[in-house]
Amino acid sequence: MEPIIIQGVLLNQAVADILIVDQHIAAIGSGLSVPNNAIRIEGSHLAAFPTFANMHTHAAMTLLKGLGSDQPLQQWLNESIWPAEKNLDDEAVYWGTKLACLEMIKCGTTLFNDMYFRLPSSAKAVAEMGLRSVLGFNVFGDGDELTDQSFLRLREEVEGAGPLVQLSIAPHSVYTVSEKGLLHCAEMSQKYGTLYHIHMSETETEVRECLQKYGCRPYSLLQRLGVLDLTEGRFVGAHSLFLDPEEIALMGSHHVTVVHNPASNLKLGSGSRFLYSELCKAGVNVTLGTDGSASSNNLDSIEAARLMSYLQKGVRQDPTVLPATELLPVATENGFKALGINAGKIEVGKLADLMLVDLNNMAFVPNNDTLSSLFYAAHGDAVDTVICNGRLLMRHRHVEGEEEIIAQARHHALKLCPQP
Amino acid sequence: MEPIIIQGVLLNQAVADILIVDQHIAAIGSGLSVPNNAIRIEGSHLAAFPTFANMHTHAAMTLLKGLGSDQPLQQWLNESIWPAEKNLDDEAVYWGTKLACLEMIKCGTTLFNDMYFRLPSSAKAVAEMGLRSVLGFNVFGDGDELTDQSFLRLREEVEGAGPLVQLSIAPHSVYTVSEKGLLHCAEMSQKYGTLYHIHMSETETEVRECLQKYGCRPYSLLQRLGVLDLTEGRFVGAHSLFLDPEEIALMGSHHVTVVHNPASNLKLGSGSRFLYSELCKAGVNVTLGTDGSASSNNLDSIEAARLMSYLQKGVRQDPTVLPATELLPVATENGFKALGINAGKIEVGKLADLMLVDLNNMAFVPNNDTLSSLFYAAHGDAVDTVICNGRLLMRHRHVEGEEEIIAQARHHALKLCPQP
Repeated sequence: MEPIIIQGVLLNQAVADILIVDQHIAAIGSGLSVPNNAIRIEGSHLAAFPTFANMHTHAAMTLLKGLGSDQPLQQWLNESIWPAEKNLDDEAVYWGTKLACLEMIKCGTTLFNDMYFRLPSSAKAVAEMGLRSVLGFNVFGDGDELTDQSFLRLREEVEGAGPLVQLSIAPHSVYTVSEKGLLHCAEMSQKYGTLYHIHMSETETEVRECLQKYGCRPYSLLQRLGVLDLTEGRFVGAHSLFLDPEEIALMGSHHVTVVHNPASNLKLGSGSRFLYSELCKAGVNVTLGTDGSASSNNLDSIEAARLMSYLQKGVRQDPTVLPATELLPVATENGFKALGINAGKIEVGKLADLMLVDLNNMAFVPNNDTLSSLFYAAHGDAVDTVICNGRLLMRHRHVEGEEEIIAQARHHALKLCPQP
Repeated sequence: MEPIIIQGVLLNQAVADILIVDQHIAAIGSGLSVPNNAIRIEGSHLAAFPTFANMHTHAAMTLLKGLGSDQPLQQWLNESIWPAEKNLDDEAVYWGTKLACLEMIKCGTTLFNDMYFRLPSSAKAVAEMGLRSVLGFNVFGDGDELTDQSFLRLREEVEGAGPLVQLSIAPHSVYTVSEKGLLHCAEMSQKYGTLYHIHMSETETEVRECLQKYGCRPYSLLQRLGVLDLTEGRFVGAHSLFLDPEEIALMGSHHVTVVHNPASNLKLGSGSRFLYSELCKAGVNVTLGTDGSASSNNLDSIEAARLMSYLQKGVRQDPTVLPATELLPVATENGFKALGINAGKIEVGKLADLMLVDLNNMAFVPNNDTLSSLFYAAHGDAVDTVICNGRLLMRHRHVEGEEEIIAQARHHALKLCPQP
């Protein structure tokens, strides 16, 4: 792989060169000497930022985008999503995941934490697209399908697809997985050292039903079952919207990672009040996600970050909450950290996951504050260049093979969702 | 002006041709005969929508975008905005307005309702850019500066700039204009038949102080002063976030137009709960705005529409509120209607204000529901072509003269906001 030199780019409000050798950021400075075979990127009118970690997705559902919008949740599932999902096959998941990867690369994302079906098809798609992903083995009920044998076979298929793909264990939720299943997943997660990725406390209904059934709230249930102990430092709770102080303390002491998905929470009518400050104070690792495109209809992490900050400011009626300087780590390094990946910051020695945004995009004209414009004015289309693990995935907004991905995704979407 | 024929475009889920002759939509159908001199637009992979009405802006403030983000309101004004505004001159307002017009055209907006200073400079900019604008004569205190003579002179300058520019009377707010000034503006608005554009009930502080000073809430104050009667059908209340039922009834019976600015309300910490359903039920004309780019940092009406719908769903915890089919008129025709402009819908006989979105944009791949994808997945960059009053303002995302506007805006921003 050739080295990459980015010359004269705006980085943290100063102009610098960035040298990438193999997978890593090798040097940052001015007038760096350039290896002969280096790919040169002229950085004037570009600013460098770390790429985003999209920490909760259902990538292949991008094929179902826009189906049954504005419907009540149960009608949406019964009439729109589930009938379409019945038609899903390996090829659809492969092309749906490719489409999602394409969209994420175009928005500056190089890591996503997914949960869906037919993982080998997704893994192949991810590996071909060149970004990083953790794909969750989805478990329901007692989780009998999750055995050493099934896990090891699947891990071989998934992680064999490429070095940037990992397998995780993903019990769906406390309302679709039994106590036995929740614990079994935790034991397997501990045994194999995987992430434990689960939907948590997404709706008030979920919490109410958990209280009725188990006499405690979802995080307290997991604590009682021993799940939080078994998964300490590897637990990722998507949503985590409805929490009480006792749960927040538990989450902090177990080094839980939560994924806030503001667009999905709003569009599905789940709620608007994410307890950002409380979670940070307790030591919880707060990260950001878009959820699947069937729930909230794009995979743009800039939009998710802006929405997160705007909601914190608006709901709490305080413009100083979650400033852009705090949004940056929430949307980038906190996600990489949760998955043990040494990226998410542009520093020498870090893995080279970074993006270059186009300062000629209207969001940066004029450029009074680059970070503020990134999070409060720009959209994903401001991203010009994306590098993941030292490899160029996008240059001037073009990703290799995108025309075929778009054509195939349209073809498979029509098969899943016949037009009226 | 040459006729324009758009052939084979997606319109309301069917493929059609659209013929534009002079300022109007002359025909919609299939296989329309094409005038010899017509500009032909090949519509496959494009969908046609009416353009947006951005009903509350401070256009030239685009030069101040990103200054003092995340600061408390008073600090933001004292330390960031007001010092920069002191440096504003006619040239800066001219180029700032041009930059805002450029951004709005790029997001599919052909009408904006503005309030700022140095209106002749703004009017010249708007006229050159070719979109529609109503520019508000900003009044403070008793409004002594608003006389027949000053109004008529300004109107001649502003409306003389071009046929699509109008002057309105814009008392700033109930907390910066006296009772005398509020009434004087209403009398002048009635005398000259202009819009009455004012910030209303934007913050809880404003409402509390109004109650302390006047013993009633802002809309009730205007009713008591006779303002709502004098401006019936011409009153535009920006924000209108904190309202009681009595005010909402008054607003409905006086055919008030309100402008919801969700991004600004969130980012400045004003609040998140806009009373959409209650206002509609009372007969209030609900429209959409972005506010100035110094408050919430872009002028993208698609983003504002999505945010409005997401907030309604999330804050009320009901995904069925404000569906895309209702968002469309809120973001388009309701705004044109408020200003008495016969546009905002793609129908024969309407003024030809319309946009073509690119179905190859990721937001529309796959295209399971075009309207849902427009409002829930797309950003302004999906807009390919914009037509205003029968004239092409943008084609393939290029606007005539944009390079010079960007260069000049950068130059003037640097003069206003010296970099540290």
